[in-house]
Amino acid sequence: MSSMSSQEALDVAFHPRSVAIAGVSPDRRRWGGRTFLEGIRQLDRLKRVYAVNPKGGELEDGSPIYTNLAAIPDDVDYLISAVPASAILGLIDDAIAKKVKVIHLFTAGFSETGEEERADLESVVFDKLRDAGIRAIGPNCMGVHSAISGLTWMSDASPVAGRVGVFSQSGMNASEIVHYGERRGVRFSYVASYGNASDLNESDYLDYLANNDETDVILGYIEGVKDGPRFVQSARRAVERKPLIILKGGQTEAGSRAAHSHTGSLAGSTAIWDAVGKQTGFIGVNGIDELIDMALIVQHLPEIRGPRVAVVGRGGGGSVLAADACDRAGLELPWLSEETQRRIGEFTPLAGSSFRNPVDTPLVPSERGTGQTVQIVAEDPNIDFLMVHFGVNWGSGPNAAAGDSFSDRVLEHIRPIKGMSSKPVALVMGRPRGVPEMEIAVRLQGELSAAGYAIFPSIEACAVAARRYLDWQAGRELF
Amino acid sequence: MSSMSSQEALDVAFHPRSVAIAGVSPDRRRWGGRTFLEGIRQLDRLKRVYAVNPKGGELEDGSPIYTNLAAIPDDVDYLISAVPASAILGLIDDAIAKKVKVIHLFTAGFSETGEEERADLESVVFDKLRDAGIRAIGPNCMGVHSAISGLTWMSDASPVAGRVGVFSQSGMNASEIVHYGERRGVRFSYVASYGNASDLNESDYLDYLANNDETDVILGYIEGVKDGPRFVQSARRAVERKPLIILKGGQTEAGSRAAHSHTGSLAGSTAIWDAVGKQTGFIGVNGIDELIDMALIVQHLPEIRGPRVAVVGRGGGGSVLAADACDRAGLELPWLSEETQRRIGEFTPLAGSSFRNPVDTPLVPSERGTGQTVQIVAEDPNIDFLMVHFGVNWGSGPNAAAGDSFSDRVLEHIRPIKGMSSKPVALVMGRPRGVPEMEIAVRLQGELSAAGYAIFPSIEACAVAARRYLDWQAGRELF
Repeated sequence: MSSMSSQEALDVAFHPRSVAIAGVSPDRRRWGGRTFLEGIRQLDRLKRVYAVNPKGGELEDGSPIYTNLAAIPDDVDYLISAVPASAILGLIDDAIAKKVKVIHLFTAGFSETGEEERADLESVVFDKLRDAGIRAIGPNCMGVHSAISGLTWMSDASPVAGRVGVFSQSGMNASEIVHYGERRGVRFSYVASYGNASDLNESDYLDYLANNDETDVILGYIEGVKDGPRFVQSARRAVERKPLIILKGGQTEAGSRAAHSHTGSLAGSTAIWDAVGKQTGFIGVNGIDELIDMALIVQHLPEIRGPRVAVVGRGGGGSVLAADACDRAGLELPWLSEETQRRIGEFTPLAGSSFRNPVDTPLVPSERGTGQTVQIVAEDPNIDFLMVHFGVNWGSGPNAAAGDSFSDRVLEHIRPIKGMSSKPVALVMGRPRGVPEMEIAVRLQGELSAAGYAIFPSIEACAVAARRYLDWQAGRELF
Repeated sequence: MSSMSSQEALDVAFHPRSVAIAGVSPDRRRWGGRTFLEGIRQLDRLKRVYAVNPKGGELEDGSPIYTNLAAIPDDVDYLISAVPASAILGLIDDAIAKKVKVIHLFTAGFSETGEEERADLESVVFDKLRDAGIRAIGPNCMGVHSAISGLTWMSDASPVAGRVGVFSQSGMNASEIVHYGERRGVRFSYVASYGNASDLNESDYLDYLANNDETDVILGYIEGVKDGPRFVQSARRAVERKPLIILKGGQTEAGSRAAHSHTGSLAGSTAIWDAVGKQTGFIGVNGIDELIDMALIVQHLPEIRGPRVAVVGRGGGGSVLAADACDRAGLELPWLSEETQRRIGEFTPLAGSSFRNPVDTPLVPSERGTGQTVQIVAEDPNIDFLMVHFGVNWGSGPNAAAGDSFSDRVLEHIRPIKGMSSKPVALVMGRPRGVPEMEIAVRLQGELSAAGYAIFPSIEACAVAARRYLDWQAGRELF
């Protein structure tokens, strides 16, 4: 039977008209099929969603658990298989009969175990699917998440969609990218976790996101590549259209062995991967933090044009460590001009301060002068961009202002600085020391992200990301 | 007049019988002298504490603000000067008349500004003090913090003392070390921020902490060294007695310039500093995070003897990145023996798992089997130590257990593993995704630290610290 194209299959996966989940427990707390159902109900966008379990029964709200696919009184576009590997062949026969278009195999326990018998089962499964013209995501993965369509495996992701797409071989890392990214102010369009990639593979997901008009930036987590030459071509085409940032798991020997155990991937060496990066022009990173740092830079600070940074705020010792971190990352901190220093000195006391660079003024972000300092520093001809470094620990403690009024004052003074600066401004928010400060940090992060700021958890993270972005820009000019 | 020795002076500073603070505002919220008073009252250990302000008046509780030192009806051992530089000479005359033993100059605006007139003032101040036999901390620093004596500049540090001492040229970095360290479970004995070090210098503080029986580990943040040969000798003597971990600010060119602006320090190059490290045997680190990571290793995991680590938990993609991070840090992840894998397989399903190393079992820390897995892995002869990696994001969300019962279950299953393991165990706690998870993380951190665990925020942080510790041990054997 003739199959759908990958593009058509992923159109179904990212916008299914109807979904069945096989292996739904009547117990809400059970991890597995029930997890998908709960997530989808939480987002509340997809209406034609059907639970299947051979034992039948009812959900808490009285809606039926169907004993098999045939019993569902509707077409099924998209099937999530959460049954154990031992039950998979029967489910596939049912799926063929039901004319399912795409199946997502959450089901694991195939070739990735390294056991021959289980690898054979995977072959049988995928032969059957191919013969029937059913396209498949997985096995051994979390599948699809999108706040646009309402399909998800997460019960706690933001219902607000954004313009960052993700393809990740690991479901856990995909969840971490979404959770941590959302905490940092990133919002996502389409996210796919694709596991063993026995049918649809990395290049299929990448092509889809590259073609997708709702996606401006693509993040990838890859353990192994199924088809190297095609991936090089897909990555190159993607990079022509939008920034592509890739975290390659299993670059070290130990990591490569772990990747083989995880998704059956043959991971390849750092050297090969670096060569692929150079050929295609994606941005390579080493961890999930860096993936999110880069997503923020390419979305919010694409106008950084050179390595000369001015750091504004916070404390003398903090300034010394900030300068060290910038220098180590390969940025430059030129001294500000006499004129710039004189202008800052007009409204800032000298004791306990320095206006050279870093500008260590006695800067609590809620104080007057933040915007004025940023404006003056941005006008210095030796500076390409600014980092404004502020803390959140002034907002609590017995002799500090109450949290909310502190946050309000920080917002009042930080929010306008972008408009006052003629150069790109990145924010760096200091480490909160306890739960009340974490609440302040979460609020400031949310409101300042919504106002279009990229916020970094440390000078070092910001400096490394900015340097990487500059190197990538320089490389692009060679293409 | 003959001076006290540095040791005697720091005995006064760390255990003053009576304290006066010059420059106390009647407004509780004002930063400056009032900050010290509020912190000391919060700790509530020091009773003979006197506020001074030429304007006089009263504090909220009706206690007097003395118009000058002479008016205080008590001796003054230790004077905190929070007056502006313009008022410092008069205050010193009063201090001499009052027979003050040690003065802490929070007052800034001296040689660190780079202005000749202000450097001259600093010379006059320190000539006067020397002639009078008064020893001095600072200027341009936060002074002393100790939950043992009750002297502090922080209104929010823990009232519980521990056995880690700190000397830090920067007050802000000292605060960050205490705040971040306490969040990570470190507790402190004596902390000094010493600024320009115009009298008592880095070696005086280091010697004091090296001799101090209440201090097991010493952390230092240094920008410049006043007396190089003496420092080498002091560091060497300290290292013979206890671990010494030093963060050197201003190692890069940009950082060195910032250090000069900050404390007037001539910072010296990385090469010189590395040579000092080799000569003396302290442990060098590059940031405050690493300082705390190392403090935890030397306090809680001194029995790590080799680089062969087993990582237990958490998720397939997480295991791949964990393996990469360990390999990059220079640790080894040997495959576990067939026997070890077989024993874990007896009670753990294979699908979605791998028992090689990392041991990616479907491990939620609250589930049964954590302790059993750790026990079996620790018995593997190819393993020197273990990292147990657990997340806190299972404890929230609509279909998860309530926070408290989740924390209880994690504690129940994680707390005993130390006793079940024949090898050192480090804990790695995953990133909390929001405020409820942060609360869970803070609670787990607190209770597990109290139970004697070192807890790291990432596999990478733990791996880097363990490798650094192993290198340091190997270096020690050469002395």
